[in-house]
Amino acid sequence: MKVKVVVTPKAAVLDPQGATVRDAMQHLGMPEVRGVRIGKYLEIEIDENGVDVESRLHGLCRDLLSNPVIEDYEVQDFGAAK
Amino acid sequence: MKVKVVVTPKAAVLDPQGATVRDAMQHLGMPEVRGVRIGKYLEIEIDENGVDVESRLHGLCRDLLSNPVIEDYEVQDFGAAK
Repeated sequence: MKVKVVVTPKAAVLDPQGATVRDAMQHLGMPEVRGVRIGKYLEIEIDENGVDVESRLHGLCRDLLSNPVIEDYEVQDFGAAK
Repeated sequence: MKVKVVVTPKAAVLDPQGATVRDAMQHLGMPEVRGVRIGKYLEIEIDENGVDVESRLHGLCRDLLSNPVIEDYEVQDFGAAK
């Protein structure tokens, strides 16, 4: 099973990397770009045969993959077809 | 309009960051994790009123946001509702 996890900075948190990319895009031919926010994207390949996989995955998203003080995470495609 | 761009390492390219996260997840209670690949996730807010926005966006994805030698990119939700 392939699960996707997206970790993004919370809306209230400054994202200097995103601001830099926004300025670069505006100068390189896309002045209509209003804002960019940059996060992490993880594709996780998981064996099907575990118990309680989803709750353990959420635990690790909170404890390992994101910093809950400044970031949100979202688990996508959990349980989708292989 | 909010467009999402996902940049991932090509399948043939080593992803040491992903391998490290895979090992950490296996040791922290998810031995069923088989592999992790890590990429970038960008949320780009774009003004609606441009001409030819999509092709310019693809140009910048190629030239600025990804390294086409080792990375693939995917534009998601282009033209979706605001």
